[in-house]
Amino acid sequence: MTDEPIALDAMGGDHMPEAAVDGALRAAAEGARVVLVGDEARLRALLRERGGELPIEHAPDVIGMDDPATDVRRRKEASVVVATRMVKAGRAGACVSMGHSGATMAAALLLLGRVRGVERPAILTNIPNARGAFTALIDAGANADCRPSFLQQFALMGDAYARAIYGREAPSIGLMSIGEEPEKGNELTREAHALLARTPGIAFHGNVEGRDLLRGNVDVVVTDGFTGNVMLKLAEGEAKVLFGMVREALRSDLRSKLGGLLAKPALKRVALRLDPAEVGAEPLLGVAGNAFIGHGSSDARAVASGIRTARRLVAADLPARIAEAVKATAAAADGRP
Amino acid sequence: MTDEPIALDAMGGDHMPEAAVDGALRAAAEGARVVLVGDEARLRALLRERGGELPIEHAPDVIGMDDPATDVRRRKEASVVVATRMVKAGRAGACVSMGHSGATMAAALLLLGRVRGVERPAILTNIPNARGAFTALIDAGANADCRPSFLQQFALMGDAYARAIYGREAPSIGLMSIGEEPEKGNELTREAHALLARTPGIAFHGNVEGRDLLRGNVDVVVTDGFTGNVMLKLAEGEAKVLFGMVREALRSDLRSKLGGLLAKPALKRVALRLDPAEVGAEPLLGVAGNAFIGHGSSDARAVASGIRTARRLVAADLPARIAEAVKATAAAADGRP
Repeated sequence: MTDEPIALDAMGGDHMPEAAVDGALRAAAEGARVVLVGDEARLRALLRERGGELPIEHAPDVIGMDDPATDVRRRKEASVVVATRMVKAGRAGACVSMGHSGATMAAALLLLGRVRGVERPAILTNIPNARGAFTALIDAGANADCRPSFLQQFALMGDAYARAIYGREAPSIGLMSIGEEPEKGNELTREAHALLARTPGIAFHGNVEGRDLLRGNVDVVVTDGFTGNVMLKLAEGEAKVLFGMVREALRSDLRSKLGGLLAKPALKRVALRLDPAEVGAEPLLGVAGNAFIGHGSSDARAVASGIRTARRLVAADLPARIAEAVKATAAAADGRP
Repeated sequence: MTDEPIALDAMGGDHMPEAAVDGALRAAAEGARVVLVGDEARLRALLRERGGELPIEHAPDVIGMDDPATDVRRRKEASVVVATRMVKAGRAGACVSMGHSGATMAAALLLLGRVRGVERPAILTNIPNARGAFTALIDAGANADCRPSFLQQFALMGDAYARAIYGREAPSIGLMSIGEEPEKGNELTREAHALLARTPGIAFHGNVEGRDLLRGNVDVVVTDGFTGNVMLKLAEGEAKVLFGMVREALRSDLRSKLGGLLAKPALKRVALRLDPAEVGAEPLLGVAGNAFIGHGSSDARAVASGIRTARRLVAADLPARIAEAVKATAAAADGRP
């Protein structure tokens, strides 16, 4: 595992800096090296309160959820910008932010740049599936309008991810569409299907449908960032609504209440499996460095999970694997060896 | 309520013709007039077996799930074509098919045509929401590639539907996107947002996100048929997966099993609320006549529900309401009174 610490944006997010400090302390207790990036005085005071010690990189500014992502260009002392700059300078192995995801992405693109040959970096998200594993959804929201070639590269990046992180030898890649036949879908998916079908080195499963995201019949689901983001938010929102309905049902009368009490530990395990805080942070793939995006609502547990996820991915050196895959595919398309 | 019967495609679907005959008999017992459209001898035999009586319109052919939708042009004796022709001829108030949805749509477009002024008919689907009501999703899959003006008309059609069926005076209309701000989204949604914001006569809520489909904060969600179909299948698939996980959890040990047994009736009510068979069939809006599409997997209960839904919509005369709304909007855009 690499020796550089994880630079944690300790200011961006709904429950910061408290959740950042508590989460980082938990991660540190597991052996992670973490640098808190943010307002030094506040972070110092919080650490003292907790009786913990962690290095701090001072960043006096923070990009708020309602600020434009383009602010990263001029607000050079914003926590997410400082954290990303540490990765650029080789002083951190990865940056993790639970703040403004557009700003995190913009900072990564601006400061780290793209992996050579990658047209568009994309956000990958782990969706818990029915097989007790995860399905990688890419792109989960970075690119609202896509060309077929972007989707081809999302497949290559998702393939590299699933090999490294899921330990799959030949991860199956599905193209999100509205029918299994290659000609079903919209203009984008029809062209992307043809392109993916002739992409060497990946196990292209063909088209998949909305229901397949949680079924776990493919390892990676490739789609444009508009559809991916809509799916991600629908999947998370539906889990919340359905569990709310179940909770309500288990309060509806005495008999159900008793049943709910008895079944509580088992149902809690299900809820936990579906909780995005279990993964904590998701990678921005295709960037020349390691950048991770977490939920704005992250608590200390989610922060600790996010740091854990980041450490695993840093060790896998995905940027190098992606560079290789993109180069090999381009060479194959040109007929070069 | 209109006097014309409902023409039921008794052959298209996974459990036909049995589910059609049983479902139609149930609906008839509730006072519905239904004509079974399909193989006369088989239907006659089934009716005799059940001891029931219903009129039959003979249709010797049936379009299978794997046949191309364009088959409706030449296979004039297919059950869905015969059923749609009955609507055209004024011999039925509506046709309902649980078969090949593309073929049902193609038959409706070919034989009934579009409401004057409507660019693209669309499929509306009722999604059970957290408020114990339904959210109307339009387009759920008829038009994979859309222009902004199509989405404007989907809003008008959804508005007419929600007024007539949900009984809302000013149904709120949300545009599916990936951020609440008007500029968030893809090229299509940004243009559609501007268009919807200046459409008179509708209560445009603005952009909504994936999580809002089930929240019930808007009455109608407008989107292109690709995104809509992906969402619909994800929402249905996720409900199945989550309930599967809950069921499994309630079998995991003795304590949970006992709890599950006690809570069973309450949990069953939740599952029932989310069951697509409760609505049974969804309307194709913008067609000059009443055409309904149900799940291929429909059983007798879903068929009976579908006939019930069709009767309510026939009574509301949506095609006339849609014609009016489209005309008024076009007039307003031209500056005419």
